[in-house]
Amino acid sequence: MKVGILAVTAYSGLELVRILRRHPQAEIASVTGRSTAGKKLSEVFPHLASLDLTITEDLTGSIDVVFSALPAAASAEKIAPLLRDGVKAVDIGADFRLKDLEEYRRWYKVDHPCPEYVEEAAYGLPELNRHEIAAARLVANPGCYPTAAILALAPAVKAGIIEPDIIVDAKSGVSGAGQNISREYLYSEVNESLRAYAVEGHRHLPEITQELGRLDTTADLAVTFLPHLAPMTRGILASCYARLREDAVGSGAAAEAAVREIYSSFYKGEPFVTVAQSPPSTKHTLGNNNCVVYPAVDTRTNRLIAISCIDNLVKGAAGQAVQNMNLMFGLPEGEGLGELALYP
Amino acid sequence: MKVGILAVTAYSGLELVRILRRHPQAEIASVTGRSTAGKKLSEVFPHLASLDLTITEDLTGSIDVVFSALPAAASAEKIAPLLRDGVKAVDIGADFRLKDLEEYRRWYKVDHPCPEYVEEAAYGLPELNRHEIAAARLVANPGCYPTAAILALAPAVKAGIIEPDIIVDAKSGVSGAGQNISREYLYSEVNESLRAYAVEGHRHLPEITQELGRLDTTADLAVTFLPHLAPMTRGILASCYARLREDAVGSGAAAEAAVREIYSSFYKGEPFVTVAQSPPSTKHTLGNNNCVVYPAVDTRTNRLIAISCIDNLVKGAAGQAVQNMNLMFGLPEGEGLGELALYP
Amino acid sequence: MKVGILAVTAYSGLELVRILRRHPQAEIASVTGRSTAGKKLSEVFPHLASLDLTITEDLTGSIDVVFSALPAAASAEKIAPLLRDGVKAVDIGADFRLKDLEEYRRWYKVDHPCPEYVEEAAYGLPELNRHEIAAARLVANPGCYPTAAILALAPAVKAGIIEPDIIVDAKSGVSGAGQNISREYLYSEVNESLRAYAVEGHRHLPEITQELGRLDTTADLAVTFLPHLAPMTRGILASCYARLREDAVGSGAAAEAAVREIYSSFYKGEPFVTVAQSPPSTKHTLGNNNCVVYPAVDTRTNRLIAISCIDNLVKGAAGQAVQNMNLMFGLPEGEGLGELALYP
Amino acid sequence: MKVGILAVTAYSGLELVRILRRHPQAEIASVTGRSTAGKKLSEVFPHLASLDLTITEDLTGSIDVVFSALPAAASAEKIAPLLRDGVKAVDIGADFRLKDLEEYRRWYKVDHPCPEYVEEAAYGLPELNRHEIAAARLVANPGCYPTAAILALAPAVKAGIIEPDIIVDAKSGVSGAGQNISREYLYSEVNESLRAYAVEGHRHLPEITQELGRLDTTADLAVTFLPHLAPMTRGILASCYARLREDAVGSGAAAEAAVREIYSSFYKGEPFVTVAQSPPSTKHTLGNNNCVVYPAVDTRTNRLIAISCIDNLVKGAAGQAVQNMNLMFGLPEGEGLGELALYP
Repeated sequence: MKVGILAVTAYSGLELVRILRRHPQAEIASVTGRSTAGKKLSEVFPHLASLDLTITEDLTGSIDVVFSALPAAASAEKIAPLLRDGVKAVDIGADFRLKDLEEYRRWYKVDHPCPEYVEEAAYGLPELNRHEIAAARLVANPGCYPTAAILALAPAVKAGIIEPDIIVDAKSGVSGAGQNISREYLYSEVNESLRAYAVEGHRHLPEITQELGRLDTTADLAVTFLPHLAPMTRGILASCYARLREDAVGSGAAAEAAVREIYSSFYKGEPFVTVAQSPPSTKHTLGNNNCVVYPAVDTRTNRLIAISCIDNLVKGAAGQAVQNMNLMFGLPEGEGLGELALYP
Repeated sequence: MKVGILAVTAYSGLELVRILRRHPQAEIASVTGRSTAGKKLSEVFPHLASLDLTITEDLTGSIDVVFSALPAAASAEKIAPLLRDGVKAVDIGADFRLKDLEEYRRWYKVDHPCPEYVEEAAYGLPELNRHEIAAARLVANPGCYPTAAILALAPAVKAGIIEPDIIVDAKSGVSGAGQNISREYLYSEVNESLRAYAVEGHRHLPEITQELGRLDTTADLAVTFLPHLAPMTRGILASCYARLREDAVGSGAAAEAAVREIYSSFYKGEPFVTVAQSPPSTKHTLGNNNCVVYPAVDTRTNRLIAISCIDNLVKGAAGQAVQNMNLMFGLPEGEGLGELALYP
Repeated sequence: MKVGILAVTAYSGLELVRILRRHPQAEIASVTGRSTAGKKLSEVFPHLASLDLTITEDLTGSIDVVFSALPAAASAEKIAPLLRDGVKAVDIGADFRLKDLEEYRRWYKVDHPCPEYVEEAAYGLPELNRHEIAAARLVANPGCYPTAAILALAPAVKAGIIEPDIIVDAKSGVSGAGQNISREYLYSEVNESLRAYAVEGHRHLPEITQELGRLDTTADLAVTFLPHLAPMTRGILASCYARLREDAVGSGAAAEAAVREIYSSFYKGEPFVTVAQSPPSTKHTLGNNNCVVYPAVDTRTNRLIAISCIDNLVKGAAGQAVQNMNLMFGLPEGEGLGELALYP
Repeated sequence: MKVGILAVTAYSGLELVRILRRHPQAEIASVTGRSTAGKKLSEVFPHLASLDLTITEDLTGSIDVVFSALPAAASAEKIAPLLRDGVKAVDIGADFRLKDLEEYRRWYKVDHPCPEYVEEAAYGLPELNRHEIAAARLVANPGCYPTAAILALAPAVKAGIIEPDIIVDAKSGVSGAGQNISREYLYSEVNESLRAYAVEGHRHLPEITQELGRLDTTADLAVTFLPHLAPMTRGILASCYARLREDAVGSGAAAEAAVREIYSSFYKGEPFVTVAQSPPSTKHTLGNNNCVVYPAVDTRTNRLIAISCIDNLVKGAAGQAVQNMNLMFGLPEGEGLGELALYP
């Protein structure tokens, strides 16, 4: 299986290289970059000295599947002609995630360049959408925050046990900002500091609402989502809060038991989601494709506290993209994704 | 003014030394420690080479005021006889914070050793309690999380503009755990990791509820408080969420303006609280006694988002303790506390 | 191939698990621990939830090869009887590294418990010692610092181009201290701090001298080795300095070219050593078995500057141990060790 | 005393603000910046909300002393006319450090814009040059690395106890690179990484050689200086190595005692240099103007190991600049500089 990567020099593009390198069925055939076109990948990233890949401005040769780490709009523009040529595509960018074109325009400040492909794109969260992904030629890989938030909340929303008022307080490592070179991401600015951002609204909010909404079409969800930047390179921890519906799970210890049972059933057999016995650390998923979910109940207020963690560049980007590729091509879902977390 | 410090080798004890060293009216007269008794302070902490202080097991000589960084129960036991001798006291520990002795026993797993002093102790949050502190001989210095959470929420609770359902999602640097020497606080375990803890309930919850409750005795607050450990040494960022009462502040931009006005008025003239124009970073308060509060409205859900940050060892411990001492002795409130943040 | 791991809960033991898990020919059959014996490995380390291994006090069942991460003396004591039973062994500890028993006693403050095996043990640095390792039943896995220092200096010493006065200034991440639970390794103590330690002499010095000495038996090396602790979890960077012998390589640009040629030839074809074109970062080897070496010449003083970096837990411990196992069992040397570095 | 700061938005400029704010005799009267001219300082740096300073393109009003944090050449150009107007100046930049104009041109790639002032400029290392500084109207504030390296080596060079072959292996926090916004200084690139840089030669080398050379004009020093970037914001640790002259101090324990005595005498009474009893951590000087020096002897090779640490932005820049200003104006040398280190 020949793979192309658009914008390989993005952190998520590089992470695709790292993962696909150990994938037994995939061969990285062509990689693109703009300012680095013409260079060897190893010239720009010396730690990739063992790879013999040259960055080109456009994809070269024939490929079976393309991953795109391009920014909004640019991604759809490059993917559309490839689809027409019969290439399957996983967009790590945001272009095919939102079904509502108006919402897309509101958050990404641009008209969608290829609206005709939006409807058919499968939202690439295998745990909720496995069959649709397997049948798709175009997969919209979820955002990093939505992956963490949706996996933390899906069992509760699906089971109808929580009120529609939901808070998602998410903390992310800095690699989520990509190689955005500005003062605020300098080491000296980030180190020993933690802050909220995008308080007025973050692009990942409509994605979270859209996908959770599909799980319970009767609920009118009111989600508040606040992202934070933490002084670490990788990892997202999402802490989610919602009132439990007492008529659904009772209260106190009974509610807690019921909630755990609902989560355990929901994720039973999932290769990449673990329902943990104790609150997870982001380090527990460093470098691998796992999502650890910890559901608990604040018995004083009968509130669900659902915590999840992922590596934003793996399950939150490149790893999930490969998981989607595996599904799209009928391969074992975990092919190339079996790594344990890097600890400590 | 001669000062004694109980448990000087605790991080908050050392921070007291750092602050009092530059206080023009205070002289550190006696410092205690258990396992280090008999040693020079500079032997144990070489960066204090310029100080000539010997650690003793008990306070020596005559003092005017004592600060205690001892653990629960031990603190009250040491403070009580000093009070009887006419020494004023600021307890950085938790012994005199909770007015309900039953709550104290529930959270600290011990009977209060000196219940007779609990009632008279002033809760040492000057922004809410300045006069009571000035008149007190015993001040209960607030916990680090309560300081951040209460200052973030007080204006809204006092003004009655939020529903009683409150979420406090707080992130703390590791020095909050003190010199607790266990595997979970090793560098290799904390670095590149973020986690929630005390999901089943944290000792600072009753303190937050008690003090916010005093601001609006008609409300029956239901606070969920979830602390997180972040990979940094100092700093607390508290993100607080509550529904706005539409009858109180309206909605949308009007609500946002009303909320900002309420916060600005509330903290007008406060020397150590700033109402910020943009979301603050914990680095903005690194090493100083400030609390930065940022109130915002999620206009999609009409929810208050109130963010605050402090240095957990300064405004969250030793700095606030000195602020309280200044009030207790009629000194200018900011004496010794004028430092700018260490940036970057 | 059934593998046993002594002291699996040490960081290097856990790293063995991570690496062997993806090794196609190895099966982790038995793992030991002292204080955790009886528990599931996943109970103690939740990120290993996907493994079904129980920690026992002693090895159970039959194994083909044992790795030991036990401390000095304890390691040899456990390994000796296994050798007698025909089990091959890789000691990640220090017991079989030093050929001079007197030196061993001087640095490890204990009489060697099994001196009879010292002579036959192969020093497990494949780049210098491949054939001996392949023939051995007992391999002494090099220390992390010696791995970095020897690989940085070996080509120069072997070629006889430097004076015998050598400085090795090495900087290590904190995981090198293992799970040593003491105040000095707490996050709050290590973060934002860098320090030298063991200035009076470090146990890895005699190992460096012994192995470099074997490369040029005519030289009487005078090595000064100073280790430093840097605020990071993994990684060693060794900066090595020695005067070039002008009669050997000339001076200026000619010397630089000659030195680069000597290094490139020396490591030609080596699967895990790269001679870099620019100064490497420890991040270039994060999580993988590579050593990057950068030789340069300070043309002002005609001094060799040889810089190397490794991941102290991989090439500096568990990865090299697996590389040694591969050699001992006639497997491809890189089996299970093909990972790219985790970047960023 | 009215103070002007050129390039206040540089990290060293901001650090001047932090220090001068608590200086009883200094008033910050005017601050300049290029891209931020016209803005309030607190707009650009919210943690400075308590200051009412507006950034202007050029200095305004009358001032007594100017500090410049401008880059090479630009600094001299701005300082020269001020000198002519009778303003005293401390150049935190490099323009007046090197006495040899050819050397200046070689390292800074520019002709010196005001060679006529080079000779009279005092090199602002008070421990070596106190009287010259006190008499000067123009002080060249030393570079951060030279400050650490020279203070580590000065007693040994002055006493003539070491051979002229010297290695300085220095490790610096990232703030040393200023607000240089490029990929290599992004948090994700620096975190968990350590690297050497400027292997081919660093601008601070001629400065180190020039000043050490003045201490022993008979020696022909051959200094190799290798700087490293460590994952921390502040701090420099310099590890310096040189052979001891056996005829000067003997060997073994006697040499060690002699060396310690030489260092203790040399720095006797110095307010900002401590000769430590144990190897220092950079954290011991975090945020303050101290330099901690630890001299030791590798008795196996009779080599001096002299370790020093400073905060690169304080003793390595702004703090030392204020120390120089105090000397130039006849104030107590430590005015405004009495802070203890921020610990932990």
